[in-house]
Amino acid sequence: MSPRVGSRVRRRITIVEDGRVRSRLDYLAAEEPMEIRVMAGGVHKTVAVTMRTPGSDFELAAGFLYAEGVVTEREVIRRIAYCMDPTVDAEQRYNIVTVDLHSAELPDLATLERHFFTTSACGVCGKASLDALENRGCMPLPPGPTVDASLLYALPQRLSERQSLFKSTGGLHAAALFRSNGDLLCLREDVGRHNAVDKVIGWALLHDELPLSDCMLLVSSRASYEILQKSTVAGIPIVCAVSAPSHRAVSVAQQFNATLVAFLRGERFNIYAGEERIVVGEADSG
Amino acid sequence: MSPRVGSRVRRRITIVEDGRVRSRLDYLAAEEPMEIRVMAGGVHKTVAVTMRTPGSDFELAAGFLYAEGVVTEREVIRRIAYCMDPTVDAEQRYNIVTVDLHSAELPDLATLERHFFTTSACGVCGKASLDALENRGCMPLPPGPTVDASLLYALPQRLSERQSLFKSTGGLHAAALFRSNGDLLCLREDVGRHNAVDKVIGWALLHDELPLSDCMLLVSSRASYEILQKSTVAGIPIVCAVSAPSHRAVSVAQQFNATLVAFLRGERFNIYAGEERIVVGEADSG
Repeated sequence: MSPRVGSRVRRRITIVEDGRVRSRLDYLAAEEPMEIRVMAGGVHKTVAVTMRTPGSDFELAAGFLYAEGVVTEREVIRRIAYCMDPTVDAEQRYNIVTVDLHSAELPDLATLERHFFTTSACGVCGKASLDALENRGCMPLPPGPTVDASLLYALPQRLSERQSLFKSTGGLHAAALFRSNGDLLCLREDVGRHNAVDKVIGWALLHDELPLSDCMLLVSSRASYEILQKSTVAGIPIVCAVSAPSHRAVSVAQQFNATLVAFLRGERFNIYAGEERIVVGEADSG
Repeated sequence: MSPRVGSRVRRRITIVEDGRVRSRLDYLAAEEPMEIRVMAGGVHKTVAVTMRTPGSDFELAAGFLYAEGVVTEREVIRRIAYCMDPTVDAEQRYNIVTVDLHSAELPDLATLERHFFTTSACGVCGKASLDALENRGCMPLPPGPTVDASLLYALPQRLSERQSLFKSTGGLHAAALFRSNGDLLCLREDVGRHNAVDKVIGWALLHDELPLSDCMLLVSSRASYEILQKSTVAGIPIVCAVSAPSHRAVSVAQQFNATLVAFLRGERFNIYAGEERIVVGEADSG
């Protein structure tokens, strides 16, 4: 058997450029959860689940455990292997890596647990991630609103004009909520892009603006799984990113009928899902 | 009392440009851990700790709990407040936010815990983060090696030439290990910058290259706390980032005697810590 998802995934996308539309096959960075297990004396324990790009998975597990102080030298490792548990779906086995130690007992992971902190987003496997959103009562988003491509072109500029902290530090992500007519509702900045999104959605919650069914979310960063997870829960129909999306972000958008636009720069962007919400007029030039 | 750290922090930095050196006060994006607690019926439970930029903290807590399904509408929230616990250090109280619910009992957080996944990096407060590294036996790095500024100028180009996945997807972070003479040891790509760093350090562990005391780490992204946490544990004396550092990354570099270079682009970079490892020759031009 071979991994279900490689380091990149091919998808058909829609390119909007200078008012013209074309379709193309393109590669997306793969994003899959990986569960890291530590095993000793026949007992194993899950120590982390992280969204990662498949590839160099054993190095990822070893490096993670080294950074956390669980593995201090190569010699303590007996073997690193993908999950061979027959009770686990075949397609998920490459998302579980077990680091088998020579020691008779599991190391003290209590310290490690104290040192971990959690980020939102979920699931021990991609399927579980999507199921989790459904189980939380997330329904596919209703149709609409529609917005004009020319309105989207203008959003990054309006975001960067208001990014006061970025201007002085050069080191922050931003998330902004716009109404579908382009009015800016809320902009927040943070070192973590997921925090910036939590802040704008938290603003909406505390100001009775939820669900955000007439809104667009713009992030100054890439669009990862967790961005789409959060926007979907808040009912945001249109998500735009200045940089690339991951393949898992596209999956969530497709499943929940959200529109996902990325590489929004100048008079161009790509649509990865829900293109029916984007209206492209005739090109002014050419 | 007012928060110890605002959204930005002022630091003196060294700028190297076209072979010339100057010093300047500059702003860094603040990065501090924030613990989110849920409280009901007089009982509270910590549900997450995230590294964030201070500011809009109540929105961050509300938005996070909304995304995770713990808070479904504003009306279930009685009050959101910073920690007033007299047993907590005064300077840490602004890093703990409690969301007090009207319900008589805490909601079922087991689902939430299953859905969380962990990222490495630690600490319920900035001080605990730094203490944790010391407690893990991290010692300040020894002096050396020294590298020439002109060698650093060339690294981003060498990184991007080898970023095969980025070229096809436009959506990946990269981390690369170089020897102090500029030889490339290992390059890895991932949707998560911390994963890319774990992969190169994991490579080093599995190839008996640790500690990396003659190495430089280059990341294609910003330098956050967790990047410096991982590089410090692996003994890497020089860390370079293409984008900005956070103030917490600078703190770790200073405390553990690492060199931190950021905004490494073209023939210029900033040094935030450990400038004695960087040799700047006379300018060729002007």
